[in-house]
Amino acid sequence: MVLRVASRFIPSSKLAAPVFLRPLALVKPVYHISRLLSTTAIRMAPSNLAPFYEGEPEAPIVKTDVPGPVSKKEIDELCKVFDTRALSLLTDYQKCFGNYIADRDGNVFLDVYAQIASIPIGYNNPTLRKAAQTPEMVNGLINRPALGTFPPHDWAHVLKTGILKVAPKGLDQVFTAMAGSDANETAYKAAFMWRRAHDRGGHHVEFTEEEMHSAMNNQAPGTSNLSILSFKSAFHGRLFGTLTTTRSKPIHKLDIPAFDWPQATFPQLRYPLDQYVEENRAAEQASLDEVEKLILNYHNPPAAVVVEPIQSEGGDNHASPDFFRKLRALTRKHNVLLIVDEVQTGVGATGKFWAHEHWDLQDPPDMVTFSKKAQTAGYYFGNPELRPNKPYRQFNTWMGDPARALLFRAIIEEIDRLDLVANTARVGSYLYGKLETLAGKYPGQFNNLRGKDRGTFIAFDNPRRDEFLARARKFGVNIGGSGQSAVRLRPMLIFQERHADVLVDALEKVVLSFQE
Amino acid sequence: MVLRVASRFIPSSKLAAPVFLRPLALVKPVYHISRLLSTTAIRMAPSNLAPFYEGEPEAPIVKTDVPGPVSKKEIDELCKVFDTRALSLLTDYQKCFGNYIADRDGNVFLDVYAQIASIPIGYNNPTLRKAAQTPEMVNGLINRPALGTFPPHDWAHVLKTGILKVAPKGLDQVFTAMAGSDANETAYKAAFMWRRAHDRGGHHVEFTEEEMHSAMNNQAPGTSNLSILSFKSAFHGRLFGTLTTTRSKPIHKLDIPAFDWPQATFPQLRYPLDQYVEENRAAEQASLDEVEKLILNYHNPPAAVVVEPIQSEGGDNHASPDFFRKLRALTRKHNVLLIVDEVQTGVGATGKFWAHEHWDLQDPPDMVTFSKKAQTAGYYFGNPELRPNKPYRQFNTWMGDPARALLFRAIIEEIDRLDLVANTARVGSYLYGKLETLAGKYPGQFNNLRGKDRGTFIAFDNPRRDEFLARARKFGVNIGGSGQSAVRLRPMLIFQERHADVLVDALEKVVLSFQE
Repeated sequence: MVLRVASRFIPSSKLAAPVFLRPLALVKPVYHISRLLSTTAIRMAPSNLAPFYEGEPEAPIVKTDVPGPVSKKEIDELCKVFDTRALSLLTDYQKCFGNYIADRDGNVFLDVYAQIASIPIGYNNPTLRKAAQTPEMVNGLINRPALGTFPPHDWAHVLKTGILKVAPKGLDQVFTAMAGSDANETAYKAAFMWRRAHDRGGHHVEFTEEEMHSAMNNQAPGTSNLSILSFKSAFHGRLFGTLTTTRSKPIHKLDIPAFDWPQATFPQLRYPLDQYVEENRAAEQASLDEVEKLILNYHNPPAAVVVEPIQSEGGDNHASPDFFRKLRALTRKHNVLLIVDEVQTGVGATGKFWAHEHWDLQDPPDMVTFSKKAQTAGYYFGNPELRPNKPYRQFNTWMGDPARALLFRAIIEEIDRLDLVANTARVGSYLYGKLETLAGKYPGQFNNLRGKDRGTFIAFDNPRRDEFLARARKFGVNIGGSGQSAVRLRPMLIFQERHADVLVDALEKVVLSFQE
Repeated sequence: MVLRVASRFIPSSKLAAPVFLRPLALVKPVYHISRLLSTTAIRMAPSNLAPFYEGEPEAPIVKTDVPGPVSKKEIDELCKVFDTRALSLLTDYQKCFGNYIADRDGNVFLDVYAQIASIPIGYNNPTLRKAAQTPEMVNGLINRPALGTFPPHDWAHVLKTGILKVAPKGLDQVFTAMAGSDANETAYKAAFMWRRAHDRGGHHVEFTEEEMHSAMNNQAPGTSNLSILSFKSAFHGRLFGTLTTTRSKPIHKLDIPAFDWPQATFPQLRYPLDQYVEENRAAEQASLDEVEKLILNYHNPPAAVVVEPIQSEGGDNHASPDFFRKLRALTRKHNVLLIVDEVQTGVGATGKFWAHEHWDLQDPPDMVTFSKKAQTAGYYFGNPELRPNKPYRQFNTWMGDPARALLFRAIIEEIDRLDLVANTARVGSYLYGKLETLAGKYPGQFNNLRGKDRGTFIAFDNPRRDEFLARARKFGVNIGGSGQSAVRLRPMLIFQERHADVLVDALEKVVLSFQE
């Protein structure tokens, strides 16, 4: 397969220094978006920007149906040892590049699903390729430490130059994990330990004999009856604690035992938000009232409330910054922790590094969990009280993966070097505008368009959603869905106006094909 | 720091081919242990064997107390961002090699703890170093797939040439995970889904509306009240489902909500086993009777029994092959699945690749979970019935990590090339014999010596266990404990007679120091 490639490449050495705003004619044909440029200025003529990395296809290539003949054969082989019923595209990763994903039949798709929102800066990223070959990375891979007991001597350095550089405001520590589910599970454990220590009168109060004995039988008082409050339609993971708090779809939960933990209604807003201000405010207040009632009355009292800044798997459901500020105040008032689950929203996609930065909180969340685009996982905590009173309580053999922490550090550096959060804010705004136009042009096809000012974290509903996604691929774009009827866009952080144009063009073709 | 190194190195090219048994004089000064050599023959003069890799220290170096001055300073720094209360040794991984672990103060210890039993073939293994630098590995690291939906086209090949090559007898599929806890949690989920499908009348029976609705509220009938039966003193992980089945120590469980799941007594055997045959048989029968009673009567009926071949974290508790064969028969009889948790016992340490191979089962376990020395994790299942009736039920974004699967493949190849399972069986036997002698010489110091014919998976009790471990380090050996009073030996698979001699020498010095 020969990929047509975009014409220019900007060497990293030139990208490292900011380029000041000049008329576009002078920087023709390409220039780097510096963080010094305002979003407004950039929107003047964005489609001319060169890709961030040389070698990206200029457009999708669709040669066969999916799966094509080569893929079909290989899927049959894979099926013998691996459950392929959720398989969407057997992928040839060697042939993927940047925003484009490729299969074995010569098809190349613009990828706005990005491994369920988890590829940060493109396939086969040249900078990550270098990072993956450093002696540090090789060391991390072949000498995997039990971090809690035998941490590498430079672990503080790795954390401080990587993960902690992007620590959310007000939080300065990290507990590393492996994936989103276990980041959330360990955050829940931290909440339970914290709350019980508080109820006992502090960290210095020792466990009683009765507590230690009963805990071994999974019974009170050693085992607590505390709970985590989550919202309807939420998705927080699939292990036993997190699955209890996941409320998006029955298929995730059926047959699996769960705890008796409370759920509150997530505000069900109407879009566009600025046309339904009063109704939406009322819906948010009703949700907050329900949360407060559950905190005060639920028979298994919540130690924490867990919430996504934008419910993702559950259908791209938004709430206002005001809602989240009030939720913070409410949880603070009742001494309940607030865990913000940024597994899908974190790391730049919403036009801020963390989505909860959009809320302008004065009082930070107690924990922020992340994974996906970080290519590693963890939760943050902001004060020493959240360290359990004794060692080995929040512990496991590996406690994360230094190799993945090094990769996240390289991702952070690249996001910074290329100013990709600003890129995403700007491109998201461009894309949202185009989608608004499409929505006007094709009534009923782009319903409840949402994600304005949330970077490229955009979604809309389509009445024939699954067919919509299937046809999008015929027109060269790989897209995912969320909830019952949402088409969710989850481009990578290197998604540019040129890619938005390809996407919008394909979306229009899908809708037109429905009319044929 | 200058390490004294062992004198000879055998190039891999020479090691690849087996060397036939010749009198030792003729192969002086070094030779490779081929799998063609019988254990008996080898035991003639084992201490002369060269290390498997050039560059290993000949002996420990103890320069300072631990932590030394350099480490102290760095630990203080780390403590600001990371909980260091479980820290045992701030490690300089660049300076570790083979069986030896190094710190920043020039200390080099023989490591028979091996990152809580999770380093398979030594620090800075040259073969793994090569594997970590292949294009395949770099690709796996920088293009992390959502395996369930976008698997790499060669994923079947990676599985078949790696993990599945060591699939336990009777099981031919794998579901990959990230660590031991989530391997077990997903195995539990598979058990619940299987059992409920069975109770419904088969995979073809659709979920009812009531099931789907109630599952969203974490209530029956959609949410099941099934349970996992585990044994007292067991350790299966620290997430909410696995922690419920973990019964080793209160500190792991306190304050964390748990399910109401049953526990049976693990046979409490007396050692040496051959002196207490009748008592031990009675203890095992009592345990089996208790299991059967719980299966038949527990109010939350078990869908599976989970068991470690040797309870590890819980204190190195053994049971006989006969016990496990009967447990298999019992679970089969009552249509309850048997999950064998080989997270700590798996991958060669017991002198078999999987510890449950010692049982000579005619009817294989339903699932075998693993992690640690595999440097990745997963569970196996043996028949299509254990695939849930629909996709997305056993699912998550990453579903494991191809980079780690590639590393495991390289580990498997190296274990095979150097015949390390046979090595471990032979060295374990040598070590056990030396420890028996020590036990005879110092009554009361090496109590309940156990692990005969279980490779290097050996333990004994010492009345001053924690002090014993601390002093062992003064004599150059890094050792861990398990349970209340066990000293647990968990050398790597490249542990040889020369290392056993160093270890035994240090253990004797510890005991002598107690007498001073």
